[in-house]
Amino acid sequence: MGGKVYFVGAGPGAPDLITMRGARLLAQADVVFHDALVHPDLLALAPQARIVNVGKRHNGAAVDQRFIHRSLAQAARRWATVVRLKGGDPTLFGRLQEEIEALEAEAIPYEVVPGVTAATAAAATLGVSLTRRGSGRSVALVTPRVGCGEAPTDWAAGAAGADTLAVYMGASQVAQVAATLIAQGKPPSTPAVLVENATVAGERHLLTNLGALLGGCPLQTQGPVLILAGRAAEAFAARTLPAETVSIPAPLF
Amino acid sequence: MGGKVYFVGAGPGAPDLITMRGARLLAQADVVFHDALVHPDLLALAPQARIVNVGKRHNGAAVDQRFIHRSLAQAARRWATVVRLKGGDPTLFGRLQEEIEALEAEAIPYEVVPGVTAATAAAATLGVSLTRRGSGRSVALVTPRVGCGEAPTDWAAGAAGADTLAVYMGASQVAQVAATLIAQGKPPSTPAVLVENATVAGERHLLTNLGALLGGCPLQTQGPVLILAGRAAEAFAARTLPAETVSIPAPLF
Repeated sequence: MGGKVYFVGAGPGAPDLITMRGARLLAQADVVFHDALVHPDLLALAPQARIVNVGKRHNGAAVDQRFIHRSLAQAARRWATVVRLKGGDPTLFGRLQEEIEALEAEAIPYEVVPGVTAATAAAATLGVSLTRRGSGRSVALVTPRVGCGEAPTDWAAGAAGADTLAVYMGASQVAQVAATLIAQGKPPSTPAVLVENATVAGERHLLTNLGALLGGCPLQTQGPVLILAGRAAEAFAARTLPAETVSIPAPLF
Repeated sequence: MGGKVYFVGAGPGAPDLITMRGARLLAQADVVFHDALVHPDLLALAPQARIVNVGKRHNGAAVDQRFIHRSLAQAARRWATVVRLKGGDPTLFGRLQEEIEALEAEAIPYEVVPGVTAATAAAATLGVSLTRRGSGRSVALVTPRVGCGEAPTDWAAGAAGADTLAVYMGASQVAQVAATLIAQGKPPSTPAVLVENATVAGERHLLTNLGALLGGCPLQTQGPVLILAGRAAEAFAARTLPAETVSIPAPLF
């Protein structure tokens, strides 16, 4: 008996950027456990399901991972189709491995349905490619968020040399991200674009560079921010800037 | 007057892994220009459209990029909705920047609709996360395919230090990819998984390591292959291997 847990990527924000498979699973779900940043229109695809928000609570505290693990396992014992809806792609920066291992420990079957991740959605919304034949052949996806006992700059050691960097969840640590990348050898003049609320209402882009970011985040941000630095940001800078783009002058490094 | 070109990500292979937005655009398209590896069921979503294959020809030769550029521009002058359907995500390894610049040179509007890329789809189909809090915080997406005048190992310089590597279009250069990564400091014992035909019929996984791959590709491959090396492959190795997984012994390095 027992059900299955589907880890479904909700995509980068806009509800129609979920996959068709993800939408179908939402329509079949008995219960949906979702993160804080999932668009309400996606939850509306599952009117038949019990909806459980396991994202940040109103007081700002995160739901304990162990509570999520226990809830998924309990739900799979009771219902056939359990959807764990994760922002972006579930395999990137979503604590998927921990949730998978909790299910495996109880022999509960699961399946992962990939989604569109923030880095490619941000590039798409900027109208640029993340790669370019002959000059942009490596893209590093990183986050400066540290776990318990980690050094705060461990993330950059292996990734700073990539032609393009996509930094997830870095808005609150912009100055430190820029300092770390510069310390790893990226020139302060390296172009960078901050993309806030990619693909949804309130989307904003800011073109700047790593040196300028040493002073901290130049935007008062409310939504999720992805930082693209390097070749892809250079491609964006080379385009005629649309009128709504905020641009600040580069520092004199 | 004139139309618009939509660069639409077809996703990693399975037709229901396209986004809802991509599917809607296919249903509205006047003409669809598609790559060779796009699933026929996706083209069936556009029964009203003219369908043009601009992938590899029967004799194996690729369609000239300049022909694609000219065709997209001509189509946008004639029709309202032109879809350029690209395998995976259009912003990764799809020569998007060249096609965009050709359209910009003629002031033709375009929009990019992101898709699920092969790296996250391969991880999803293996049932593992590409990242893990505390041990897998950087993912590098690379290809060893070189452009004219490039050194064959340029791609690895900045990416080999990432916790997980996803190598696109590397099947024909497996030995060289492995040698390059080992030369960059990855131990020969670094786990690697070859994923062929991710998410479609004929999907196969092979768990091996970089040292073993120095001898060349251990599979006779026919479909596209993504190589995952490092932490994500380690997570896959740590799981009980399903019966259908082919596994070869690790070499004694």
